[in-house]
Amino acid sequence: MRKYGIADTTFSRVDMGKIAYKIIRDEDDEAEIIRYTVPGIKDLPVAAKRLIDEGCDGVITLGWVGKTMLDKYSYLATSIGLIIVQILTSKHVIDVTIHEDEADSEEKLKEIAIDRTSKHARNLVKLVKEGKNALTKYAGKGLRQGFRDAGEID
Amino acid sequence: MRKYGIADTTFSRVDMGKIAYKIIRDEDDEAEIIRYTVPGIKDLPVAAKRLIDEGCDGVITLGWVGKTMLDKYSYLATSIGLIIVQILTSKHVIDVTIHEDEADSEEKLKEIAIDRTSKHARNLVKLVKEGKNALTKYAGKGLRQGFRDAGEID
Amino acid sequence: MRKYGIADTTFSRVDMGKIAYKIIRDEDDEAEIIRYTVPGIKDLPVAAKRLIDEGCDGVITLGWVGKTMLDKYSYLATSIGLIIVQILTSKHVIDVTIHEDEADSEEKLKEIAIDRTSKHARNLVKLVKEGKNALTKYAGKGLRQGFRDAGEID
Amino acid sequence: MRKYGIADTTFSRVDMGKIAYKIIRDEDDEAEIIRYTVPGIKDLPVAAKRLIDEGCDGVITLGWVGKTMLDKYSYLATSIGLIIVQILTSKHVIDVTIHEDEADSEEKLKEIAIDRTSKHARNLVKLVKEGKNALTKYAGKGLRQGFRDAGEID
Amino acid sequence: MRKYGIADTTFSRVDMGKIAYKIIRDEDDEAEIIRYTVPGIKDLPVAAKRLIDEGCDGVITLGWVGKTMLDKYSYLATSIGLIIVQILTSKHVIDVTIHEDEADSEEKLKEIAIDRTSKHARNLVKLVKEGKNALTKYAGKGLRQGFRDAGEID
Repeated sequence: MRKYGIADTTFSRVDMGKIAYKIIRDEDDEAEIIRYTVPGIKDLPVAAKRLIDEGCDGVITLGWVGKTMLDKYSYLATSIGLIIVQILTSKHVIDVTIHEDEADSEEKLKEIAIDRTSKHARNLVKLVKEGKNALTKYAGKGLRQGFRDAGEID
Repeated sequence: MRKYGIADTTFSRVDMGKIAYKIIRDEDDEAEIIRYTVPGIKDLPVAAKRLIDEGCDGVITLGWVGKTMLDKYSYLATSIGLIIVQILTSKHVIDVTIHEDEADSEEKLKEIAIDRTSKHARNLVKLVKEGKNALTKYAGKGLRQGFRDAGEID
Repeated sequence: MRKYGIADTTFSRVDMGKIAYKIIRDEDDEAEIIRYTVPGIKDLPVAAKRLIDEGCDGVITLGWVGKTMLDKYSYLATSIGLIIVQILTSKHVIDVTIHEDEADSEEKLKEIAIDRTSKHARNLVKLVKEGKNALTKYAGKGLRQGFRDAGEID
Repeated sequence: MRKYGIADTTFSRVDMGKIAYKIIRDEDDEAEIIRYTVPGIKDLPVAAKRLIDEGCDGVITLGWVGKTMLDKYSYLATSIGLIIVQILTSKHVIDVTIHEDEADSEEKLKEIAIDRTSKHARNLVKLVKEGKNALTKYAGKGLRQGFRDAGEID
Repeated sequence: MRKYGIADTTFSRVDMGKIAYKIIRDEDDEAEIIRYTVPGIKDLPVAAKRLIDEGCDGVITLGWVGKTMLDKYSYLATSIGLIIVQILTSKHVIDVTIHEDEADSEEKLKEIAIDRTSKHARNLVKLVKEGKNALTKYAGKGLRQGFRDAGEID
């Protein structure tokens, strides 16, 4: 049976874990889904690692990042960590990150969070269920998560 | 028996190790708590690693960072290191960092240090004692350490 | 039989995977070529790792990066990840990256993408087929991908 | 018998290796001390690793960094490397770094180099000889190396 | 028999590999020297790793870096990679990097490239042939590669 992991944070201002759960359940109704909540983004790599240790075939992490330079350095360290987890385990960890300075209003920020989480949860299921060519028909199509697709050039 | 590690520094201007010890003792009175003091933040990853080598189920690190760009680079290197320790051991290392430029007065800085250390020490105990869903009821709630909670959007 | 991997993204606005496939096929018509499509650049290191796990002798990754500082941090994290994959596997992962701010027009951007992908696909085949001295005659020649060669000094 | 490693560079403008040697010898007169000299800071992580491979219980590295942004990037890469050495070996590598832009005069820079090297050489011996609580009485005391102690807040 | 590796690029505008070869041959006329040419700096870590896999006792890498911020990020990622190769293999990889913005004229840039390559090729041979104290007499002497030595303070 397929097993998905969701790692989210108490720092986030939107309950993206709930959204991801719903989407994954809709897309793969027989799968097992395990959720893991940590304080902040820098705790996400170990959460992803532990979820994979428990047998998850793929993980989605749901990070929320503040506006300062230090928050961005934390984002960078976390991104490197999430990539290392994937390299060491050969499993996908799809990384959803919301930056507080991406939008001018809280309303818009929430919209972005919902859209990005939903689309990437679907991406994760596709990759886990169907494998390396599940997304190939969209290759080079300029897909975006949280915003409108940019589209293919030409 | 649960075993917690506390790694702190002589660079810090607040004895956060003592605060973390008290909180962890209050929250888990049967646990063993081991403290490890190093000169500065860049020594924290190996201290955390050695605490885990000794059997700690989780570690809290207590860093204090200066104001210059170089201090921030050291913060970045340390953050990457702490994340790698966690990935290689599959244990939580909750990272408390105080930046000297977070507040205008020493008094305020100390308040932040106490609040952040206390809250994250509680987070560590929750994760170690109760596991991956201990914090799920706070997921997306905009919790903050050192400052007032930002709260959930809406 | 030689085996090449192509990892591309749905974020990209040009279907560089198709271009890389054609070039590799032209340059090494007996080889097996495996394509792997992921959402964005941060997913490329694990895709490369999985392609190597499947037996690829070398991989080309085809990334597309936005204009913001955060996109550049993602580029940095990805670059570190791709290098780690190579170090751990001792296989080449030739990294093609297109930055949206490299050109003023979409047309020019597409030209760069085609040129860079084509040249690096050829580089990959040369390294995989002929090994460490396949490119030595061009050493120090100031070759560029995406732009005109800079040439050797003097 | 305890074994200490000293890794220094030919780039440095002060012979910090000699200073570190003298201090370690004074603090632990029975110990074996091994010195390793490399060209610049980016060579320090492998020197530290090789010293630990030879049986060193702890290492002090003595780096000197120029003023440009690129020098600072080299500092960052080196810092990450030194932390990884420590994580992989579970041994302390105390990192002394002098930045050429820390002081306005050569005289002052030399003073900083001597002070920082001396204090950290003592820190290393304390950690190696007495272990994780050797420095705990100074935890949170705002100790500084190269400059006057900042002191504890309050 | 000693074995040296040289990793260079087609991006470089000076054939530094040839210079390094000549110097290493002059300094150690019985040694085996293996050359590996890759497209750009981000390919150097795996080239160094593969050279060490083939039995090289030490490697010199010869990188050439453009002027943009992105080039500098590539430099940072490469530097981290080269340090990781060294840590994992315990072998020296002496890193020669030329930055296009180091000099105002091509002529000067070439001079820097020749000087830096030559001096570091000698450093590599010294470290490989004579070991950890081969350079100790120059410790703290402010040696520079590509520029005039800064000299020891005082």
